[in-house]
Amino acid sequence: MPAIRHALSVTREGDFAQWYQEVIAEAEMAEESGVRGCMVIKPWGYGIWERIQKLMDAEIKAAGVENCYFPLFIPLSYFAKEAEHVEGFAKEMAVVTHHRLVSDGKGSLTPDPEAKLEEPLVVRPTSETVIGAAMARWIQSWRDLPLLTNQWANVVRWEMRTRMFLRTSEFLWQEGHTAHADRDDAMAETLRALEMYRAFAEGPLAMPVIAGEKPENERFPGAVATYSIEAMMQDGKALQAGTSHYLGTGFSEAAGIRYQDKEGQQALCHTTSWGVSTRMIGGVIMTHGDDDGLRVPPQIAPHQIVILPMLREDDGDVALLAYCEDLRAALARESALGEPVRVLLDKRPGKATQKRWAWVKKGVPLILEIGGRDAAGGQISVLRRHRLWREDGKPDFHPLPRDQFVSAAGGELEGIQRALHEEALARRDANIHSGVDSLEALSAFYAEDQRYPGWVELGWSKPTGAELEDVVAKLKTLKLTIRNTPMNGEPVSGTCIFTGKPAVERIYVARAY
Amino acid sequence: MPAIRHALSVTREGDFAQWYQEVIAEAEMAEESGVRGCMVIKPWGYGIWERIQKLMDAEIKAAGVENCYFPLFIPLSYFAKEAEHVEGFAKEMAVVTHHRLVSDGKGSLTPDPEAKLEEPLVVRPTSETVIGAAMARWIQSWRDLPLLTNQWANVVRWEMRTRMFLRTSEFLWQEGHTAHADRDDAMAETLRALEMYRAFAEGPLAMPVIAGEKPENERFPGAVATYSIEAMMQDGKALQAGTSHYLGTGFSEAAGIRYQDKEGQQALCHTTSWGVSTRMIGGVIMTHGDDDGLRVPPQIAPHQIVILPMLREDDGDVALLAYCEDLRAALARESALGEPVRVLLDKRPGKATQKRWAWVKKGVPLILEIGGRDAAGGQISVLRRHRLWREDGKPDFHPLPRDQFVSAAGGELEGIQRALHEEALARRDANIHSGVDSLEALSAFYAEDQRYPGWVELGWSKPTGAELEDVVAKLKTLKLTIRNTPMNGEPVSGTCIFTGKPAVERIYVARAY
Repeated sequence: MPAIRHALSVTREGDFAQWYQEVIAEAEMAEESGVRGCMVIKPWGYGIWERIQKLMDAEIKAAGVENCYFPLFIPLSYFAKEAEHVEGFAKEMAVVTHHRLVSDGKGSLTPDPEAKLEEPLVVRPTSETVIGAAMARWIQSWRDLPLLTNQWANVVRWEMRTRMFLRTSEFLWQEGHTAHADRDDAMAETLRALEMYRAFAEGPLAMPVIAGEKPENERFPGAVATYSIEAMMQDGKALQAGTSHYLGTGFSEAAGIRYQDKEGQQALCHTTSWGVSTRMIGGVIMTHGDDDGLRVPPQIAPHQIVILPMLREDDGDVALLAYCEDLRAALARESALGEPVRVLLDKRPGKATQKRWAWVKKGVPLILEIGGRDAAGGQISVLRRHRLWREDGKPDFHPLPRDQFVSAAGGELEGIQRALHEEALARRDANIHSGVDSLEALSAFYAEDQRYPGWVELGWSKPTGAELEDVVAKLKTLKLTIRNTPMNGEPVSGTCIFTGKPAVERIYVARAY
Repeated sequence: MPAIRHALSVTREGDFAQWYQEVIAEAEMAEESGVRGCMVIKPWGYGIWERIQKLMDAEIKAAGVENCYFPLFIPLSYFAKEAEHVEGFAKEMAVVTHHRLVSDGKGSLTPDPEAKLEEPLVVRPTSETVIGAAMARWIQSWRDLPLLTNQWANVVRWEMRTRMFLRTSEFLWQEGHTAHADRDDAMAETLRALEMYRAFAEGPLAMPVIAGEKPENERFPGAVATYSIEAMMQDGKALQAGTSHYLGTGFSEAAGIRYQDKEGQQALCHTTSWGVSTRMIGGVIMTHGDDDGLRVPPQIAPHQIVILPMLREDDGDVALLAYCEDLRAALARESALGEPVRVLLDKRPGKATQKRWAWVKKGVPLILEIGGRDAAGGQISVLRRHRLWREDGKPDFHPLPRDQFVSAAGGELEGIQRALHEEALARRDANIHSGVDSLEALSAFYAEDQRYPGWVELGWSKPTGAELEDVVAKLKTLKLTIRNTPMNGEPVSGTCIFTGKPAVERIYVARAY
């Protein structure tokens, strides 16, 4: 088989971390901003986020959750309350201490000592505290419950080592916060959000995930139970792509979220919170990207089809552009995946081949190249991004009658969406290993010469407290973590490799982002 | 005429500022957050913002502008550069100086002295500097121009006196930033954005505005020309509801935004910026609100029609709810103002009258009350929010056959949109006065016993520099400002009341928010 000249300079096999950075750069999704730990999200990356927002927001609204907006700044005292009741309270936060700049007399500016805040303000790392304070105002009686709110916002967590989309000091997310009369109702909401995330990942993102409960040591600080969706990246590592927490009554107690029940008694609310972020985009890259750049699932692609006219800067261009514009309009009248087809006619100056490779690297699902002869003959030539190469190492263009392509376009996009999911699912399942029956076997499986070892599925005895800490420490020496216990898992048998006790539930063990 | 018992406790005539606060509280649009100068935007207020975002974003995209996302934090040094070249550089900003909290040993938290930032970060008050730095990276050649970007974001300006939606320390907005090869192209973009805002205000917001150029003293610091849309509130004050700036080459020079032109020469880009914010919602309240609360123009109403079943908690409720659900579905299949009708069936527990008044205060355009007898007879009863009262002081309910209402609903909503605009336009025009021919007459017009005096239209000689400062100072003693010079204004004659020189252009003078 002839060698393929891939569009990227680094392959996944060669250096996965470098490859990830190159995809982001070459697909023009984001770049370093010059501001520590913060990225600039460029149009193609932000367009994918807008698609995620639009589809996820519809799901959130359909569940009866209402969007609000809460302050960016949270007074320090709110965190003092939380720090008291929450073990493992995180302290890496951006702190605002001044509200004015003055000249420092040396041609530069400095925070004005006269404008020091009496109480410092923290840039929200998450909004439990400030939304909790609002809930305490809004909830009086059982009639006010459940209270279901969500916000789309930026949050800041001071990160020492950052990585675009995966871990940045500032990131974009949605955070759902809900209050309920009792445990059952709150737990139902926690699991509804988890299932919403699972279906969203497997649907629009075409990214297979395992939905399950995190072990005790991986809980959100203060939560009674934390659930996650976990996806496998192409280097075999796990990515936590969304979380949902049942918070019990602890946050209500700290914030004073109480209601009068039907019997006239005061009771604490049971609260939940759940979120997904721009991290999902990192997951899409590492699930679907290949050695030619990104492949975007059609449902979240800002453009699903790009038309590239092979302009020659001569008189023939007029007829060619008219043909392409007519084709664009015809495709825009078609539907795919429940929405009108999103199609772009790229008329910018520049060589068609250069433009083709730019769109390949961005991962647009279908690229149409149209020359003067195609226009005259009522033809198109289509390149399918997810199956780019012919056996002879050339790009796999398919010539087709225009009308045939137009009427099949919706189905074609739906087929690509399915194909990407199936491909990722087959790879994921092939890289989950279940034959590991001892700590030694686990250690060997993750030995240094194993390139991308994947995940290990184990039965364990679900230790807690000090016994769990011991397990976590052992795993840490292998750079491993417990990802989650799958929902509705089949019963397990056998012995826990960590404790020697009978196994009671299934867990996934993996290296992780 | 019998006295009407209005839904609010304060009237516009009685105390406009109090009335404004009461509308916001009673319509449950927003509330103070407990965080200085920051508000919580509640579902009804945020729903209106989501409508504004959706419609405005479509206009922005249609103009070829691409959405991006830039960092919340801007290094102090970026501002030092700007402070050098921009007179009137604003210094009231939130400054982040630390990235960690520690216990202060007294049960509270404090910024960790060990985690002081080497260079403080400013929370963005606007993003010219950080976007300028990105443009300098992105632009090399004339082929890269124009570069058209926009972002939807939160920004922070430390305000001493805040007022919900009108002036808050944190607010939500969009900021467009564009770079062009020459002045003409940049000016065309500046005016395109201005016209987009004008049409948006007059269309979806049903809010009449005057689009024009701000006088020299009201320019955005560093801008060559600033344009605005100005709306008249019901107390006669002006509200600047959107601005568009032609920035010349000053910001490009500071940030190094250069391109190679077709002749191979390096040249500075001409840049623009333009924005509208959640302030628009304040404008909608003070344009359309009445003594019963808010009236939302149908195009930006989260719900355009609310159906209230008169539930009796007996067996009849089943049939009544089925009738209402069927009505809801039928209305949702209709269209108004180019989109499907947005209709809510409000099934929450509670008395129908109480719920009616809650929706009246929120300003939903059409309220349907349906009783068991209506359901049996195929009738509905509609209350039109913009014409609430009968002459006898009772709510003006109209009984109508269901099918007739359904087929007329789209047209009815379009009629309400028009009617709100016409009402506001007539009031605005009636309150612009043009007979003022001396400073004394101006002073008398704005004498203290004049309750809501409106605007004065004048010809002036367009003074600059010290002469303009003198005019501004005179106006300031009357608490007046120059709003703008209307675009395409008719020629003026006569003498400037400030300078005694011949008038050369028209201006509007007003008190303002």
